[in-house]
Amino acid sequence: MKILFVFAHPEQRSLTGALRDVAIKELEAQGHEVRLTDLYADGWKSEVDRADFPLLRPEERLKPVTASHDAYAQDALTGDVKAEIEKLLWADALILHFPLWWFAMPAILKGWVDRVFAYGLAYGVGEHSEKRWGDRYGEGTFAGKRAMLIVTAGGWAEHYAPRGVNGPIDDLLFPINHGILYYPGYDVLPPFVVYRADKLDEAGFAPIAEDLRERMRSFATIAPIAYRRQNGGDYLIPSMQLRPEIGDPGATGFALHVDEGKPASRTLISAVG
Amino acid sequence: MKILFVFAHPEQRSLTGALRDVAIKELEAQGHEVRLTDLYADGWKSEVDRADFPLLRPEERLKPVTASHDAYAQDALTGDVKAEIEKLLWADALILHFPLWWFAMPAILKGWVDRVFAYGLAYGVGEHSEKRWGDRYGEGTFAGKRAMLIVTAGGWAEHYAPRGVNGPIDDLLFPINHGILYYPGYDVLPPFVVYRADKLDEAGFAPIAEDLRERMRSFATIAPIAYRRQNGGDYLIPSMQLRPEIGDPGATGFALHVDEGKPASRTLISAVG
Repeated sequence: MKILFVFAHPEQRSLTGALRDVAIKELEAQGHEVRLTDLYADGWKSEVDRADFPLLRPEERLKPVTASHDAYAQDALTGDVKAEIEKLLWADALILHFPLWWFAMPAILKGWVDRVFAYGLAYGVGEHSEKRWGDRYGEGTFAGKRAMLIVTAGGWAEHYAPRGVNGPIDDLLFPINHGILYYPGYDVLPPFVVYRADKLDEAGFAPIAEDLRERMRSFATIAPIAYRRQNGGDYLIPSMQLRPEIGDPGATGFALHVDEGKPASRTLISAVG
Repeated sequence: MKILFVFAHPEQRSLTGALRDVAIKELEAQGHEVRLTDLYADGWKSEVDRADFPLLRPEERLKPVTASHDAYAQDALTGDVKAEIEKLLWADALILHFPLWWFAMPAILKGWVDRVFAYGLAYGVGEHSEKRWGDRYGEGTFAGKRAMLIVTAGGWAEHYAPRGVNGPIDDLLFPINHGILYYPGYDVLPPFVVYRADKLDEAGFAPIAEDLRERMRSFATIAPIAYRRQNGGDYLIPSMQLRPEIGDPGATGFALHVDEGKPASRTLISAVG
């Protein structure tokens, strides 16, 4: 497969950096072709602003959604964004690799999403009518491609467990996995999560690196998270509510959007002892 | 009260900008003192990097957690970050106002959190032992202060409903409300959310502005979200798991971290027709 690997850590010599090298080396050993976007090394600009839309006239109000639509339609995005879009369209798969800061992506990676996931590319795709609400959540530009997160977290695995104080890791990552990756069509693989990353030493690194290699070996074949397709029959249209018969009566929460009846893989946790 | 209002939108003439002015004017009319951090206007730097830690020697590896600890302890953070910390310590309350982009904060606001919420200020506070896991989730530097989100979203309210395809808005905002605001001690008020913001015209603006004024009038008195305090008896220590008797057997998800037995207020939704 052709894989775009997006990396977001300010220190090349970090654990996150070492794991990146392990992952890419193993993917290449498996015959995959990998291109790397190293956001800090590239000096990526994080903020969506007027400079992103060269066609916008000085007196014109910046409406980010409209400006994104117009710039993408007219091939008038900035060069750095266009280069990332070219890589996304080239790739069969996307890996986002980052440290979990405040239960979310670092700003620089969020800025990559905010700027690169343009209207017409990653949203605003397909027919919008009373019968259909666009091609999203399992359909869209990236349908048929795979995506996956590699995440290093400072805290303890127990604190991210299903009943841990931070909230379950799969729920914390849902806005990314479901909202950013599944939305434009990717099949989202269960994430690879390393806990207590700040405490990791060389002895602890080896088994984690081996877990990551193993995951990279199955990257092309592992079953994705079984999110429900928006247009697959589980949601009412156009209200986009789950059909009443899905889940227990009155049940809510992210887990309802996963079809437990489908085969799926689990989040792989690699924790320092 | 003294209120720090952090605003993150690239267009002053946006709906978000107009709502900001409505909110601040009403808060001041109620006798509150408001200071504004306008991230785009200030040219805020979003990325955590070496430049944030002037004491770090060139050959030294950047470990963000350690560097944050050392710089905060030695009063050696950069001037822009120190100015924000001074405002946070001055204020009795914090309001974050932003458009929801890809189900999360814009990068520039995430970068404000990543850089300003230093070790020793917002995390790494209090005793860490077998008997206590720090002052966090209801305790910490900002205990006794209030915080609240004002959010504009492009999508429809139904899609963010408890069974909507995007996931429930309260769950989507949990990583911010619980993970960023409650963690360092704030009492977190239910958010004010505006849907279909991109479609808003002048006729639609007036009722939303009135809803927002009403919410600002009750800002000092409304009950916060009833999150469970980490050290309040609901979690086992040190595993930080919810006690087995809390919730239905096997229940998981963010909602478990809210004590339904406590009085609380609800998310205020102000949707365009």
